[in-house]
Amino acid sequence: MAYINENYLNLNKNYLFAKISEEKQKYIKNNHEKKLIDLSIGDVTLPLTDSAIKGIHIASSNLSKKETFTGYPPSSGHDFLKKEIIKNDYLKRNISIDNNELFIGDSSKSDISNILDIFDKNLTVALQDPVYPVYVDSNIIRGNKIIYINDIKTFLPQKEHIDIIYLCFPNNPTGAIISKELLKKYVDYAIENDTIIFFDSAYEAFIQDKNTVHSIYEIENAKKVAVEFRSFSKTAGFTSIRLAYTIVPNAIMLHSKSNKNISLNSMFKRLKDTKYNGPSYISEYAIYNVYESDKLNELQKNINYYLRNTTLLAEFFKSKGMIDVSSINSPYVWIKCKDNINSWDFFYYMLNNFSIIGTPGIGFGANGEGHFRLTGFGTYEDTIEAINRMDKKL
Amino acid sequence: MAYINENYLNLNKNYLFAKISEEKQKYIKNNHEKKLIDLSIGDVTLPLTDSAIKGIHIASSNLSKKETFTGYPPSSGHDFLKKEIIKNDYLKRNISIDNNELFIGDSSKSDISNILDIFDKNLTVALQDPVYPVYVDSNIIRGNKIIYINDIKTFLPQKEHIDIIYLCFPNNPTGAIISKELLKKYVDYAIENDTIIFFDSAYEAFIQDKNTVHSIYEIENAKKVAVEFRSFSKTAGFTSIRLAYTIVPNAIMLHSKSNKNISLNSMFKRLKDTKYNGPSYISEYAIYNVYESDKLNELQKNINYYLRNTTLLAEFFKSKGMIDVSSINSPYVWIKCKDNINSWDFFYYMLNNFSIIGTPGIGFGANGEGHFRLTGFGTYEDTIEAINRMDKKL
Repeated sequence: MAYINENYLNLNKNYLFAKISEEKQKYIKNNHEKKLIDLSIGDVTLPLTDSAIKGIHIASSNLSKKETFTGYPPSSGHDFLKKEIIKNDYLKRNISIDNNELFIGDSSKSDISNILDIFDKNLTVALQDPVYPVYVDSNIIRGNKIIYINDIKTFLPQKEHIDIIYLCFPNNPTGAIISKELLKKYVDYAIENDTIIFFDSAYEAFIQDKNTVHSIYEIENAKKVAVEFRSFSKTAGFTSIRLAYTIVPNAIMLHSKSNKNISLNSMFKRLKDTKYNGPSYISEYAIYNVYESDKLNELQKNINYYLRNTTLLAEFFKSKGMIDVSSINSPYVWIKCKDNINSWDFFYYMLNNFSIIGTPGIGFGANGEGHFRLTGFGTYEDTIEAINRMDKKL
Repeated sequence: MAYINENYLNLNKNYLFAKISEEKQKYIKNNHEKKLIDLSIGDVTLPLTDSAIKGIHIASSNLSKKETFTGYPPSSGHDFLKKEIIKNDYLKRNISIDNNELFIGDSSKSDISNILDIFDKNLTVALQDPVYPVYVDSNIIRGNKIIYINDIKTFLPQKEHIDIIYLCFPNNPTGAIISKELLKKYVDYAIENDTIIFFDSAYEAFIQDKNTVHSIYEIENAKKVAVEFRSFSKTAGFTSIRLAYTIVPNAIMLHSKSNKNISLNSMFKRLKDTKYNGPSYISEYAIYNVYESDKLNELQKNINYYLRNTTLLAEFFKSKGMIDVSSINSPYVWIKCKDNINSWDFFYYMLNNFSIIGTPGIGFGANGEGHFRLTGFGTYEDTIEAINRMDKKL
């Protein structure tokens, strides 16, 4: 009799985005005449850039001819793209990354959840609250103990030993950034306490502020303790074609119970070799062509479009006293619900009064209660219209 | 202190294909003047078909325009492709598959190894020997007990309870098929003994024989116990662009320790939702266009090319008394090493005498010792030349 992994029974069954989608469909069915504006969306909406499309065409041309056809990719991706990533995303910030420290794959979500496979059970991990639900669920499935960091500034030090700290900056869902000074404290803490940092910088391309980092390796000694997760989903609009990468520095050491030291890098490589086949050549070539033809400005143009929407929303909510921001560094606006009502009540309030969909903060953790997330991924026109609808009544 | 998953220490360190590649490079370096023929390759070499390339162009055109742009795929793939897979791969064989039973992803290797995540530890699994190494390694990582089936015909019944049986037909590495009668015995055994069958049919498109199955669901009641893994890697030459799918029937039930019944399908869906983002839209569209424009004959043409090579090799080794086959149903030829020498000795014998690379059978398990695998994935010209080189001396 094949028993299940009982940890799955501890997962929360009402998956946030499934419930939002259900409520959305119900509303559309009952309100044919009203135009719904969906600002809950955490997905890009602008088409791929010209140079990415050109990259796809070059790749498919290569795959259509025997002389240039290529088969299975290396499990950590092709060197032609590795070289460009290392040059553009790291060397330009004076960070050196070895070829073998870079693992290109199809999904950051997969890497950040599946990397736990190489660790022992019964880890103690620290997560921010509010938090991206994938970190929570992948740790529940492993049976790990989760400690929530309620205030990132006052987190250190902890009484309990922490095996892994997850940091997501710019943050999903709040859009917050971390100062270099505070991040350095985390790195120092990690070195001192034999803790590993998982640094998720999926939104680094949205950063406008100077006193934060695009990569955790801008902080001294971070290579001794930090794994960095990056994605082309939001940076290049690749959510449909899937591409991401993970940096696992050679310097990070893990321990076996028999007191052997084993590099995290070698274990991650073994995981990748055993269970994965690497990313799609076409997706690789799409971003390769952007880098190689020096067309990062095309990507930036799309990001600026989303940032403009986000800034408009943020300024509006600031004027209503529902938010206090000085700079925008992500596609997200995190607001306090009107009149201190709870997140789901505010969800229905927004839906029923303005035909606007957002994401209830409680879906991101206990500290999200009373908050609400809106995104800049809608069109400019819809964003303006949403603000006009809310302006007089909110 | 973050400890490792100690099971990783039990993995075999000398990865088969890495060692072959190393020996190959060494030989090339020391033998510039000789033309090496690599028949160890388990990867396609012919370009993508016209209709697949056309599908890539349609997809990239859709992604280049705002009106047709699409973002994150559903975690089990888009319905437009699901419909075609169900129609072409199942309904045409009188098998009905529900939309929710089909999970399209990027890799069969990933699905067949990661599905173990939803099961308890301490399973007992039965694997064929010789065997595709991924099944072995993914079970070692989970700490499962592995029983090897030395002769598939005499396997049943077992004294010990088996939680999962892995069956790969047409088989990698041997190319063997399973008769309908024997497969029915396995299905009946699984129903009687509360065992799950993982059926890997990555090579079904190569089948020439009548008395075997393309899908395990051709066997009565198989939907109660069998998960089927399919890949477009060899079928459509998609190793570079990544696409595969898994069928998890709704009827298969698992048990929790508190005696609840939980469907394997719902657990696999939760796994996919939590840790994955679905396949690339471009890869989906590539095969969609093949199905939708009714161009499966283009795929068959490529498969016939590989089958011709495989048949030539098989006939040659049959004439040398090193093999006994009646039909070819895979791209693989599995031979007995000359003069009963061991697999690695024969590897060097082939390399040094004929400049031909193959795969030592021992790399696929203890029963592979004394055997050797060659493939039909080379060019026709190389295959002929390899046979000519061997003909007089072998």
